[in-house]
Amino acid sequence: MKMSIFLFDGFTALDIVGGYDVLARIPDMEVEFFSARKQVVADDLRSLGMIAYRDFSEMTGTDILYVPGGPGVSKAMKDEAALASIRALHETTTWTVGICNGVETLGAAGLLAGKTVTTNWACRQRVAAFGATVKPLRYCCDGKLVTGAGVSASIDAALFLAGEIGGEHLAKTIQLGIEYYPDPPFGNGTPDTAPADIQAAIQFFEANPASHLEKRQPKF
Amino acid sequence: MKMSIFLFDGFTALDIVGGYDVLARIPDMEVEFFSARKQVVADDLRSLGMIAYRDFSEMTGTDILYVPGGPGVSKAMKDEAALASIRALHETTTWTVGICNGVETLGAAGLLAGKTVTTNWACRQRVAAFGATVKPLRYCCDGKLVTGAGVSASIDAALFLAGEIGGEHLAKTIQLGIEYYPDPPFGNGTPDTAPADIQAAIQFFEANPASHLEKRQPKF
Repeated sequence: MKMSIFLFDGFTALDIVGGYDVLARIPDMEVEFFSARKQVVADDLRSLGMIAYRDFSEMTGTDILYVPGGPGVSKAMKDEAALASIRALHETTTWTVGICNGVETLGAAGLLAGKTVTTNWACRQRVAAFGATVKPLRYCCDGKLVTGAGVSASIDAALFLAGEIGGEHLAKTIQLGIEYYPDPPFGNGTPDTAPADIQAAIQFFEANPASHLEKRQPKF
Repeated sequence: MKMSIFLFDGFTALDIVGGYDVLARIPDMEVEFFSARKQVVADDLRSLGMIAYRDFSEMTGTDILYVPGGPGVSKAMKDEAALASIRALHETTTWTVGICNGVETLGAAGLLAGKTVTTNWACRQRVAAFGATVKPLRYCCDGKLVTGAGVSASIDAALFLAGEIGGEHLAKTIQLGIEYYPDPPFGNGTPDTAPADIQAAIQFFEANPASHLEKRQPKF
């Protein structure tokens, strides 16, 4: 099986790596990272660079299309070449994965009408505007479309998908291999139930993604 | 504050990104990735490339030294230049972080004698051989040394450290920003309590890290 991960300027690294380090461990899974050009692509915090070694012209088909989120989505979802590549690849996939506000990118590509999905807490209304039913879930599966909530939810979404592809025993083996028996030091919780000031801080960030990227140039 | 992340051939991406996407969100945190040379460095699955844009010669001091794990540790921990760099940087740090079997690298650098640490489930004996007391914890703090268990434990260890640096309110804000309210689809559990066949599969992998890397060349 082949998984193709879309890179764009201003991605959130954990949106990718949380899912990658689960799904890439499925036996015989081949993974590739693609972007408009073969290049180093900078994350949202401008400190981490990941390389894209396939460009759109090489992307003729894949088994799993993986579209992460990040503040850069606001620009990526207006890039017609990116949307065309995503739309064409989706036609060929067994599974299409959207994480966090990467689900918006799928919406902009026209893939969400009538679908049931989840997404980043702060993006629910924007995703619903693409004709999707948005559920406040950690991950969601509708046909071949698997969506995850924000950032670290990529791990849970990918474990679910690993179970669909290779069965529960394989998914549990990968889960223990990455020692995913989470224990947040300050307890669990959700953005929905967080104190108002924390909700406001997160909403401020989510509402101003482009300005955060413009303030800081990549270090490389 | 400055955080310096050590890259080496065959790192595990989630060892890095789980902690990075927490700690790099602390206000005014500057992050850099360093390696022996300025280069693209390949992960353990040979599909993901991250760039190191500082080399050892430029690394004169840092506030947080972050040493991830991965199958490549078995080679990195025999690299005298890497160990010298880690040893010298540790002298300058406010915090030194080791994740997964990256804790072994700290041991090889001579930093663990008399320390209490945690590490990857399969590495406890090897880490103890460096004179450390190894506890089966998700994360552990002894003085300025913060250690994490395997791979995804980097998230919990980093949230703990974010709380130490910026307080619980900041750590909780970051936690919700990355939507870390984990919910593994097949439940929780630990390697210690996993079925014998799953333990054996993980132990086989952990015991043969170098052979896994040699079998597959990076794709870039």
